[in-house]
Amino acid sequence: MEKKKFAVVLSGSGVYDGAEIHEATLTMLAIMESGAVYQCFAPDIPQHHVVNHITGQEMDETRNVLVESARIARGDIKPLSKFRANDYDALIFPGGFGAAKNLSTVAFDGSNARVNREVEYVIRQMLERQKPIGALCIAPAIVARVIQGVEVTIGNDTSTIDAIKKMGGKHVVTSHGQVVHDETYNVFTTPCYMLDATILDIRKDASLVVNEMMKKMVS
Amino acid sequence: MEKKKFAVVLSGSGVYDGAEIHEATLTMLAIMESGAVYQCFAPDIPQHHVVNHITGQEMDETRNVLVESARIARGDIKPLSKFRANDYDALIFPGGFGAAKNLSTVAFDGSNARVNREVEYVIRQMLERQKPIGALCIAPAIVARVIQGVEVTIGNDTSTIDAIKKMGGKHVVTSHGQVVHDETYNVFTTPCYMLDATILDIRKDASLVVNEMMKKMVS
Repeated sequence: MEKKKFAVVLSGSGVYDGAEIHEATLTMLAIMESGAVYQCFAPDIPQHHVVNHITGQEMDETRNVLVESARIARGDIKPLSKFRANDYDALIFPGGFGAAKNLSTVAFDGSNARVNREVEYVIRQMLERQKPIGALCIAPAIVARVIQGVEVTIGNDTSTIDAIKKMGGKHVVTSHGQVVHDETYNVFTTPCYMLDATILDIRKDASLVVNEMMKKMVS
Repeated sequence: MEKKKFAVVLSGSGVYDGAEIHEATLTMLAIMESGAVYQCFAPDIPQHHVVNHITGQEMDETRNVLVESARIARGDIKPLSKFRANDYDALIFPGGFGAAKNLSTVAFDGSNARVNREVEYVIRQMLERQKPIGALCIAPAIVARVIQGVEVTIGNDTSTIDAIKKMGGKHVVTSHGQVVHDETYNVFTTPCYMLDATILDIRKDASLVVNEMMKKMVS
């Protein structure tokens, strides 16, 4: 039997301006452990900004989301424009502020956020085919902005929950070790670093969401 | 009983010019899973260069090793100059070209490599106290350059093996799932991405080296 293929959408490399590195790495590990394989993707666009991860201050630099995401992917990454839903069994978004700053404007515009057009398109392509879509940490807010009425979790952060509800989404408060599955849209979400967490929690959440997705593949 | 504390020395963020992200992340995970805790460190120095991880080409940028390493550490990182051996039970170096380009000049000078003075000092401090020192991937070459006659593994890469032998080191050829322990110096090494590998191999090797180090703590 051919292995199931996940598309992992990255948003840079580093929690404050890109993809959260532990979430991305442990998602990739969980996919391989589940017997599936993955291909990384990222949009070929400039990052919203570059943040010094020690001081939290903005740096006077420009970086590219695809090029920086390649650090996590060890160079094996494709531009998101090359994604074809027929070639993949599942789509997953690790978190990090990159999801809210580069893949969308959730960090700035809350419920009025714009979603990158390529990101929106890949979500809609998978949705049409009822293939599982997963999102960790803050990334569920992107999915909620694209899929009207979807039920998701980002943990328990009240302002993000409010934004998701204003988008028309439903929200379930969760702790580590919990995955929310919206059966109508086949969407899987889990809180990860949106809650206080150690890398042990991320390990658990990433494994759980991938394993739940594996049970709901379109055969 | 107080938890054992590992110092994890990073060398940037990204395999081609910094710390290998999977090795670093999975080392941190393995430490927490073993019941210990970690603190990340990196030298506050410029990177040797910045590499586009898609093309492999050098980019016209400068980045700082400590600042970029902070991406993997989610901001919780200290300059290597602040490391005090009395505060830590073990020292570990994930791999990536950063170990061979930023922490040392192994990538350019082979057996004649210089080792960053702070890196050399922290290795020597731990060695004096017989506390376990771990190194993954290419990082064992740094340890071999500092500790004359130490026995290490970097897998099976012949030119690196030659360099290690010219440094005065001993080398054991290994595959995934193997750790070389030098009992005289209490040094632990394992090949990781120096061999063909998937993230599953890195998971196995990082866990194994950390677990072996836990058995040889100075009580």
